[in-house]
Amino acid sequence: MKSIRDSGILGFGCPYEEAAIVVFGAPFDGTVSFRPGSRFGPSAVRSDSWGIETYSPYQDKDLTEVKGHDMGDLDLPSGDTQQVLKDIRDCAAMILADRKKFIMLGGEHLVTLPAVEAVLREFPDLCIIHVDAHADLRNDYMGVRLSHATVIRRIWERVGDNRIWQFGIRSGERSEFRWAKEHTRLTPFVLDGIEKAIEEIGNRPVYLTVDLDVLDPSAFPGTGTPEHGGIAFRELLDFLLKLQPLDIRAADLVELAPHYDQSGISTAAACKLLRELALIL
Amino acid sequence: MKSIRDSGILGFGCPYEEAAIVVFGAPFDGTVSFRPGSRFGPSAVRSDSWGIETYSPYQDKDLTEVKGHDMGDLDLPSGDTQQVLKDIRDCAAMILADRKKFIMLGGEHLVTLPAVEAVLREFPDLCIIHVDAHADLRNDYMGVRLSHATVIRRIWERVGDNRIWQFGIRSGERSEFRWAKEHTRLTPFVLDGIEKAIEEIGNRPVYLTVDLDVLDPSAFPGTGTPEHGGIAFRELLDFLLKLQPLDIRAADLVELAPHYDQSGISTAAACKLLRELALIL
Amino acid sequence: MKSIRDSGILGFGCPYEEAAIVVFGAPFDGTVSFRPGSRFGPSAVRSDSWGIETYSPYQDKDLTEVKGHDMGDLDLPSGDTQQVLKDIRDCAAMILADRKKFIMLGGEHLVTLPAVEAVLREFPDLCIIHVDAHADLRNDYMGVRLSHATVIRRIWERVGDNRIWQFGIRSGERSEFRWAKEHTRLTPFVLDGIEKAIEEIGNRPVYLTVDLDVLDPSAFPGTGTPEHGGIAFRELLDFLLKLQPLDIRAADLVELAPHYDQSGISTAAACKLLRELALIL
Amino acid sequence: MKSIRDSGILGFGCPYEEAAIVVFGAPFDGTVSFRPGSRFGPSAVRSDSWGIETYSPYQDKDLTEVKGHDMGDLDLPSGDTQQVLKDIRDCAAMILADRKKFIMLGGEHLVTLPAVEAVLREFPDLCIIHVDAHADLRNDYMGVRLSHATVIRRIWERVGDNRIWQFGIRSGERSEFRWAKEHTRLTPFVLDGIEKAIEEIGNRPVYLTVDLDVLDPSAFPGTGTPEHGGIAFRELLDFLLKLQPLDIRAADLVELAPHYDQSGISTAAACKLLRELALIL
Amino acid sequence: MKSIRDSGILGFGCPYEEAAIVVFGAPFDGTVSFRPGSRFGPSAVRSDSWGIETYSPYQDKDLTEVKGHDMGDLDLPSGDTQQVLKDIRDCAAMILADRKKFIMLGGEHLVTLPAVEAVLREFPDLCIIHVDAHADLRNDYMGVRLSHATVIRRIWERVGDNRIWQFGIRSGERSEFRWAKEHTRLTPFVLDGIEKAIEEIGNRPVYLTVDLDVLDPSAFPGTGTPEHGGIAFRELLDFLLKLQPLDIRAADLVELAPHYDQSGISTAAACKLLRELALIL
Amino acid sequence: MKSIRDSGILGFGCPYEEAAIVVFGAPFDGTVSFRPGSRFGPSAVRSDSWGIETYSPYQDKDLTEVKGHDMGDLDLPSGDTQQVLKDIRDCAAMILADRKKFIMLGGEHLVTLPAVEAVLREFPDLCIIHVDAHADLRNDYMGVRLSHATVIRRIWERVGDNRIWQFGIRSGERSEFRWAKEHTRLTPFVLDGIEKAIEEIGNRPVYLTVDLDVLDPSAFPGTGTPEHGGIAFRELLDFLLKLQPLDIRAADLVELAPHYDQSGISTAAACKLLRELALIL
Repeated sequence: MKSIRDSGILGFGCPYEEAAIVVFGAPFDGTVSFRPGSRFGPSAVRSDSWGIETYSPYQDKDLTEVKGHDMGDLDLPSGDTQQVLKDIRDCAAMILADRKKFIMLGGEHLVTLPAVEAVLREFPDLCIIHVDAHADLRNDYMGVRLSHATVIRRIWERVGDNRIWQFGIRSGERSEFRWAKEHTRLTPFVLDGIEKAIEEIGNRPVYLTVDLDVLDPSAFPGTGTPEHGGIAFRELLDFLLKLQPLDIRAADLVELAPHYDQSGISTAAACKLLRELALIL
Repeated sequence: MKSIRDSGILGFGCPYEEAAIVVFGAPFDGTVSFRPGSRFGPSAVRSDSWGIETYSPYQDKDLTEVKGHDMGDLDLPSGDTQQVLKDIRDCAAMILADRKKFIMLGGEHLVTLPAVEAVLREFPDLCIIHVDAHADLRNDYMGVRLSHATVIRRIWERVGDNRIWQFGIRSGERSEFRWAKEHTRLTPFVLDGIEKAIEEIGNRPVYLTVDLDVLDPSAFPGTGTPEHGGIAFRELLDFLLKLQPLDIRAADLVELAPHYDQSGISTAAACKLLRELALIL
Repeated sequence: MKSIRDSGILGFGCPYEEAAIVVFGAPFDGTVSFRPGSRFGPSAVRSDSWGIETYSPYQDKDLTEVKGHDMGDLDLPSGDTQQVLKDIRDCAAMILADRKKFIMLGGEHLVTLPAVEAVLREFPDLCIIHVDAHADLRNDYMGVRLSHATVIRRIWERVGDNRIWQFGIRSGERSEFRWAKEHTRLTPFVLDGIEKAIEEIGNRPVYLTVDLDVLDPSAFPGTGTPEHGGIAFRELLDFLLKLQPLDIRAADLVELAPHYDQSGISTAAACKLLRELALIL
Repeated sequence: MKSIRDSGILGFGCPYEEAAIVVFGAPFDGTVSFRPGSRFGPSAVRSDSWGIETYSPYQDKDLTEVKGHDMGDLDLPSGDTQQVLKDIRDCAAMILADRKKFIMLGGEHLVTLPAVEAVLREFPDLCIIHVDAHADLRNDYMGVRLSHATVIRRIWERVGDNRIWQFGIRSGERSEFRWAKEHTRLTPFVLDGIEKAIEEIGNRPVYLTVDLDVLDPSAFPGTGTPEHGGIAFRELLDFLLKLQPLDIRAADLVELAPHYDQSGISTAAACKLLRELALIL
Repeated sequence: MKSIRDSGILGFGCPYEEAAIVVFGAPFDGTVSFRPGSRFGPSAVRSDSWGIETYSPYQDKDLTEVKGHDMGDLDLPSGDTQQVLKDIRDCAAMILADRKKFIMLGGEHLVTLPAVEAVLREFPDLCIIHVDAHADLRNDYMGVRLSHATVIRRIWERVGDNRIWQFGIRSGERSEFRWAKEHTRLTPFVLDGIEKAIEEIGNRPVYLTVDLDVLDPSAFPGTGTPEHGGIAFRELLDFLLKLQPLDIRAADLVELAPHYDQSGISTAAACKLLRELALIL
Repeated sequence: MKSIRDSGILGFGCPYEEAAIVVFGAPFDGTVSFRPGSRFGPSAVRSDSWGIETYSPYQDKDLTEVKGHDMGDLDLPSGDTQQVLKDIRDCAAMILADRKKFIMLGGEHLVTLPAVEAVLREFPDLCIIHVDAHADLRNDYMGVRLSHATVIRRIWERVGDNRIWQFGIRSGERSEFRWAKEHTRLTPFVLDGIEKAIEEIGNRPVYLTVDLDVLDPSAFPGTGTPEHGGIAFRELLDFLLKLQPLDIRAADLVELAPHYDQSGISTAAACKLLRELALIL
């Protein structure tokens, strides 16, 4: 039947074998301290993305020109964090081994750790661009080391100093902001300075992680920890468009918790950013 | 990746060719007069049905024993009712031609008309069991003849007198109730008398259409026209279980409008009834 | 333009002068202790009632046979309880002086007091039928004597012992239940005994006040103080239908707070009960 | 009773005969592809507009100085698009024939077509100002020619090249943006350039159509197709205030779908824009 | 200031030292597979319980006669299940060591395990009454042994055969229902047979665990896994009232997830059951 | 038990005696004309504030350095406005008598009147900084003199001309704006001019009242009267940070009505502003 809607996210209909970009969901929110629910992020994007235009007037490009494949969501065992991380790492590694790029949809921010680990194994000089409201630089959170609040610290342990660029950060402990001065390049409150970062990164491979709560809660209420004083949608979009010179190998969009936003505008924001990201990669 | 959730509705993973039962969505609500939104019914059931147990303690049967296939949703042109009806009829006809049964998920009640037409062509002595809060027997609705409020009248025009059994009806115009006395077998308010209907139907083929708003709004708030004084979930389930002796060739569940129920219990009711229906067929 | 929806609540289109029954709203919730919002009850019923059938299959009667007029909502000064009560009393008195019956839509339960006062002036032997989850028999509530929680006590002060029949009461202070034994006829938890009440009342005039929270919260979540263990919709409807032998001069439906029920089923319940009540009067 | 709230939308209490401006609702959303519900837009504005101040500090004008009449909502037959368009056209034509201006409240954007047709018959040199997130320039949408996604294209067929000014457009197919270069004056993303448009239009009569989804979803979540990266409320207001030199004969505000915004801020935006528009006309 | 609301849940104002019954919250939902959010259960009950009457007309008792203390919520490290269980066990053990009874508010059902362990240490012949929609008897859930879906199986490992009475069970795997036949006393679907259970238990100490999703979703939509065909509120209340002859040492109410129920009726149900439970203990 | 969350709002754990700043709630909304519910503001802030970071990167200060005490909410008799105002005044006076500052959480704006009265008695040369969408300068509202819409006028009666600075005002009657020209210093629409106000105030004591609806509804939908065209969160925060040179003796945050914002972002805004305010005082 030709009239069945049979394509995946963003209308992606390319078989895995032929795809250049693979999207998969990592529906895990097991370490969230405040409001859980980002496990429903990927399926919400999948449901609503069919309503989005394939054409971007911002880039004058069309998704029909992208060889994209939607793998669906990983079937993760909530309650066993170690196994969850392993499953994500395996999935990411497989895609990379097949010479494809990926965009992962979270889930909470901890899912970025195994994805970065997989990319790092292929690209040891990987640089990280981290866009977020929260620093995520704690050493542990209530005694737990693998947590959404510690994920960038864990990544730093794997990549070392001056390999992580952080933008938009407006929440954290005092110690996190101090620690960042020594170890990462943290731009608080705003997205300024990306041009300089691009220069510094040069042609090294990049992992881009976007915690969607960097957006102001007015534009993105559907998230676990809304943090006012954030970035407008258009600012974030412009930031992403500037990244085009970089060699981005993989990216993620995390922390959409759709149940907290009955209006659906948070999911709409994620869908639109996903489209733009797929056109950039 | 074995850990990808790759199956369809209710976990149905059987290829179309091997399937005995096919589920498809008919996301249309174009003639609804009061609150639209049943177009989102099929995708809501698809999203939430993965959380349901495959085992029914009511029937002591398991979905893993059913050869089920999920075709996905038809891609219907809202705004062109005639084309919508044709697409549904074609899909139903194809499935029947392939010697399979189907369960259609609405959408509004008008989608039942083309489905019945397709079954009727294969089985001219078809009987209709209609469970609903509303009689749906008007000749026209504000001048429109193809409407959710006229669907059973249109079906009657195709099957004639005493081929339609109606249960649970508690809303309509006076003229509908009077007309029913001559032409259908209408049980108002309750589901009593199904035993007699089963006897009368005998081994003739049956189309079962369940407008979920027959349920009381307390159990099923997510619908366009909630009508209090309805049937409890357990009553409806018991009614369906009694239908097992019948030769049901196809069935539908219509009028879930999930946006009106932020709690998700309406979708949960539809998922559970779909499971039980799949196990009965 | 014939195609303008120009009629009032329930489609009532009779001019005031010719009407036998007048509906008006009393959108006041100023003394509510827990969750306010019943001030939006009347406008919600007005918005949604156009979607309801005019025919009642329960009574085999049709609203088109009723000479009904919708006065709209009183424009009450929130923050000045005394003036609010006076405005309601004046409105009720005017309608009675014009030899019409009325149905008032609350608003919180305190609005019943001035309505009863107006009817009592015309009919000094008035009896009160009170259906509610709460006894509303306190002498004062946090020092306030004019309160939703004291309204039946205030009415008792005007009518005296054994003139008030209470049904469905399942919440109150111990002292209220004890006090009721001496002064009212209180049936706790259920609606039983209405037949006896009808006999006792005989042909005396009756004011009927229905606090909709007597319904179970499953059927009526949109209210300030949901109280589980309540009455099913069908039970309440049957109770009302039994009142037909009585000489009901006026009635009210109070405590719909639509904002607490995004699904709209509470408003739908109020609309349907309003239809049945209008057909009974 | 002086205390009855008996006035219409915005408190308009002028009889039709004496009115200079007439407001009416066109509650139709039958061709919507994604999320329906704009049929409830007019009644939501009517319910909430009584809470708005009559005075505009932006214009230092007061609604009490406007001779406004609220006709109520058209009673449109959902499911019969042709009849719906005819009813709207007839209503608009009648008002114009009576030498009045009108503001129509949608409903989906297709309702603009018959309204423009009516105005065009009176004013053949009519110019169109179109504010929207979406280009609405498709030739057909899924084979349907009369659709919310084709409405400006249909209007172009009636007025021809360079008679339509489009602002704020940030979504559409590539072909729509290309087509616009030849046939309309389209300003993407922003509202810049209105001064030049005013100059070009001169004293020709104008129809103003505002698809409220031009607002950013943060300010206006209650719409069918939220499109991020939009216009701030204050920007849109300033744009409208600049239109005062023009000879606007009629206007509309469309695509408010209030059920998607439980907070009510979308309806509040529509009410405030309606007030400012009524003061401009 | 006497006018400050300074008491705890249910108005409990007794100091810990003098209390006979202690209430504490266990806000954990880390192993939930479908919809999380029961971590917010205890704080929702605390917020809303001040609105509840202290008097129970069902028992003719008043909370003012109960020496109750509200400890507040445990500060649990989400993401470290083992530590969470230890913290709960320690808290329960401390209360028991101080010769008090407790009622624990979940949180997901896994929190029952450490609470039972603590009681079992004091009372080795402990019997368990388990009221639930789900059997919770799996050996593991997606490879995880400590899970909301395995909790009763884990408890059985500690108490052995015929020490667990299960009521209302209507969901599970086939293997769970079969396993139960050998090892527990499981009553499917309904709450019948409690009289026999009371007789069998005699004067042995009892732990009562109530998964609130045993209630029908119509009465209790705010839960992670709504399961239709459940128990009415009044039936559950009557069941609890029958338990008065038993020697209940501790109890819990689990699986309230308030964010899924914007109306608040689920929290109201939990508050009322908590009141009745406190009066029974 | 060290693991119990036993602290108050913002984690404030200082005993009253040792505190420098006291927070208390004034949960009253009895005179609200449009949408009530601000009575739930304080408890929503208390519930959600535990999730907020104690560190402010805007001020590089930490709440752990503040001696803060949370008194809880006043237990106010809704329905008796005079008594409500007296209770608030008494509470404020007691705190001031104990040489502490306070932050009051409303409730509707009328609660500011008694708080100002208490401060004024201690500091007769008190200046008022008023941030709001609404002028609140009416002499009476529907005949009621003590109202959320008259509160600043009432305060003016106590302090006289040129002692009140108003910012962000964008709604009111024409007469209010005219009256303000003579009696207060009103900056419409924006927050400009605070530097000049600071200069004029000098070292006189200040009461700061922030009606949170000054924020744009996109950032703060959870309020009774959303007024578009407002202030961004970051603008309001910057405004507050500029106040540090002033001698602020007390402050309030009013008009959070959390039920209108299912997403919780309004409460999150209030929590963050409360933190910043506590660090400024």
